[in-house]
Amino acid sequence: MSDPEPSTPQAPVTLFFEDFEPGVVFELGSRTLSKEEMISFAREYDPQPFHVDEEAAADSAFGGLIASGWYTAAIFMRLYADALLSRAASMGSPGVEELRWLVPVRPGDTLDARLNILGVAPSERNPSRGTIHFRAEVRNQRDETVMTFTGRGLFARRPQL
Amino acid sequence: MSDPEPSTPQAPVTLFFEDFEPGVVFELGSRTLSKEEMISFAREYDPQPFHVDEEAAADSAFGGLIASGWYTAAIFMRLYADALLSRAASMGSPGVEELRWLVPVRPGDTLDARLNILGVAPSERNPSRGTIHFRAEVRNQRDETVMTFTGRGLFARRPQL
Repeated sequence: MSDPEPSTPQAPVTLFFEDFEPGVVFELGSRTLSKEEMISFAREYDPQPFHVDEEAAADSAFGGLIASGWYTAAIFMRLYADALLSRAASMGSPGVEELRWLVPVRPGDTLDARLNILGVAPSERNPSRGTIHFRAEVRNQRDETVMTFTGRGLFARRPQL
Repeated sequence: MSDPEPSTPQAPVTLFFEDFEPGVVFELGSRTLSKEEMISFAREYDPQPFHVDEEAAADSAFGGLIASGWYTAAIFMRLYADALLSRAASMGSPGVEELRWLVPVRPGDTLDARLNILGVAPSERNPSRGTIHFRAEVRNQRDETVMTFTGRGLFARRPQL
């Protein structure tokens, strides 16, 4: 890669571990899904007929093309990165729990994402960081919840000046 | 999309619910990860500095560029789709549990994937299908396990002739 510029310019870091509190909800914005991108993702990563082939999808139990569940997760991640992580002292994530694909996601759907802070845990081993526990929710334009999971993120604590 | 052909031609369906048994392991093959594709995915879906910016990544706790965890999940999915789902009576998945990103994945890594069948459960409501419970494992070229999760897949039962 000759140009390592990120697609989202990094904003100044203003969100640290201390800025997350249980009960707080972060609205992460929304995105309308194009059929082209949905199919393109599935061709690369999840080429099952009901994700890539409109005719086969129409004949399937889903009655039409649906997004790969991993595409919905990726869309959530982009909204989370743009709205929150781009200005946070994020240090990655060890994993997620109970990822649920609840309602089929289809071309043209508008998804919005939110992050509900469930709990915060300062690191016992490293006083400069802590873990945020959250519940991720993605809803469509009919206010149906299409995907949920609980996740964890590692964040640096605010530097003591 | 003017051309709805899937990128993986669908093979004849030879794997049905009855063909999965607890204890069986499916080897799903391997893939070597290019830096270009790893960064391209992250620019689209997870543009954190340590996923998209080599200099920032070198200065991060990771000491260099690492893959988005969702990219590793997507690579697993492609191997699973090509090696198994392309010949299976797959009807989708309701979700996954305990997704763990255990070891950083880096450009040039060769990942291999396997599926360990944990259990099988015929549907109580629909005699034509059943659920397979499995553990997914992804390892790198140093035999380190980089990602695991447990998942479920819905499969049609073999038609009675």
